[in-house]
Amino acid sequence: MTGIANDPAVKQCIDDCLQCRTICLAMAMGHCLEQGGAHAEREHLSLMLNCAEMCGTAGHFMLAESTLHAEVCALCAKVCGACAQSCRQLGGMEDCVDACERCAKSCARVAGVDGPPTHGTDRLPTTGVSGGPPRQGAYG
Amino acid sequence: MTGIANDPAVKQCIDDCLQCRTICLAMAMGHCLEQGGAHAEREHLSLMLNCAEMCGTAGHFMLAESTLHAEVCALCAKVCGACAQSCRQLGGMEDCVDACERCAKSCARVAGVDGPPTHGTDRLPTTGVSGGPPRQGAYG
Amino acid sequence: MTGIANDPAVKQCIDDCLQCRTICLAMAMGHCLEQGGAHAEREHLSLMLNCAEMCGTAGHFMLAESTLHAEVCALCAKVCGACAQSCRQLGGMEDCVDACERCAKSCARVAGVDGPPTHGTDRLPTTGVSGGPPRQGAYG
Amino acid sequence: MTGIANDPAVKQCIDDCLQCRTICLAMAMGHCLEQGGAHAEREHLSLMLNCAEMCGTAGHFMLAESTLHAEVCALCAKVCGACAQSCRQLGGMEDCVDACERCAKSCARVAGVDGPPTHGTDRLPTTGVSGGPPRQGAYG
Repeated sequence: MTGIANDPAVKQCIDDCLQCRTICLAMAMGHCLEQGGAHAEREHLSLMLNCAEMCGTAGHFMLAESTLHAEVCALCAKVCGACAQSCRQLGGMEDCVDACERCAKSCARVAGVDGPPTHGTDRLPTTGVSGGPPRQGAYG
Repeated sequence: MTGIANDPAVKQCIDDCLQCRTICLAMAMGHCLEQGGAHAEREHLSLMLNCAEMCGTAGHFMLAESTLHAEVCALCAKVCGACAQSCRQLGGMEDCVDACERCAKSCARVAGVDGPPTHGTDRLPTTGVSGGPPRQGAYG
Repeated sequence: MTGIANDPAVKQCIDDCLQCRTICLAMAMGHCLEQGGAHAEREHLSLMLNCAEMCGTAGHFMLAESTLHAEVCALCAKVCGACAQSCRQLGGMEDCVDACERCAKSCARVAGVDGPPTHGTDRLPTTGVSGGPPRQGAYG
Repeated sequence: MTGIANDPAVKQCIDDCLQCRTICLAMAMGHCLEQGGAHAEREHLSLMLNCAEMCGTAGHFMLAESTLHAEVCALCAKVCGACAQSCRQLGGMEDCVDACERCAKSCARVAGVDGPPTHGTDRLPTTGVSGGPPRQGAYG
């Protein structure tokens, strides 16, 4: 299609961001509020909704081919990593963990911060954007 | 996945809305601004961006399983119909025409207003959301 | 300012929409999740978040001076009315009730549906969009 | 109001973000598309729309009292600074320059990066978030 950045990594990242946005929003409004308890606690729920928001914004910057998209993607990777970790701790949220990790990895790649990525962040979860078992997904 | 409405038509509509949002945004920011001229005229460009916004909102209502989602989808079908027509008149925007028409049809189905839908749109596809029995709703 | 619709009612409505969006979002994420119980039940919380979304979209259509803004505002008035009613039933959410009612009324005016407007809607609150004393500014 | 972060700097920043979002969106869709020419060039217009998006997201993170809001605000300050600079170069966009600079300053304060703030950023405009004549505004 005309008008979308032609870099395959960016295209993949746009898809991953929009998919992650959808899943975070759907699971926050659906699964979490239905489950209640820890799932509906403010910190977790607001993280999920913020993650959806951040993913939407990262997608927007890439779609509009902003020169600042790399920095937005780097931050999006962090937010997704934090959301993945919060979801993993709760359990039963594998779809959201997967979407967040995929998006985090994809954003980190676009941001040029993948590899040993988020070393040096102290209070932010690195698990989402770095290591762990090789994730199979849209870009293997 | 847990937490997403289980109606297949709604699931399809969520996908179509989010896809249409993406394509409208991408083509507005990409193709239209690159082409300039009529493509970058205010009326067309704002329609495309508004269409993206409306599709996002319709998706949000369905993901959150709002009781008002049918009315939001009915309106989204109108906006998508208007955007499809504007894109068709300009030419060279087939991807956007397709995404908007698909989304309009999908939204009309979820809204319960499909039937002969987008016949004879002059500039606003009112047939898409009305047609047949007088629709009660929009402050009728 | 250049570029914003010059109709004072539209300007007011943009303000009311954006204010309502802010308050719904803030109270959903803050007050409701802190209170828990009925405040954090899915139907209420998703209504508040959807209301925030719809208000944002209505503001977007007015800012972009869309020819479809009246229909979007009519729907926004409904959503705000429903949100005001849900908040009123819960109690302790006066700020949100006020913002939603103000926005509903403002949207109804822009949509050309104020007056006795929502008579006949059965399950949607009419207080927000109908009568009462002529409103000056912030419900003075 | 209940549920909104009580820190006055954060409250001010939320206001500034939402105001900046509104003005960027309004001027992009209004003034810029009406003016055409350099105002409607892709790089400028997409920066304005991205700025609106980023401001909305920063507001969202603060409203939801995310622990990540400082990093989001730091990035928002950058984006606003870039937008202010682009608007200043074009001329005739003082409202947008002002809103972006105010928001950039406010975000930098919340992010804890104000003072000589963005020293060391090489390719991003610092004028928006640092010096210049004392701006009169909500927080002087």
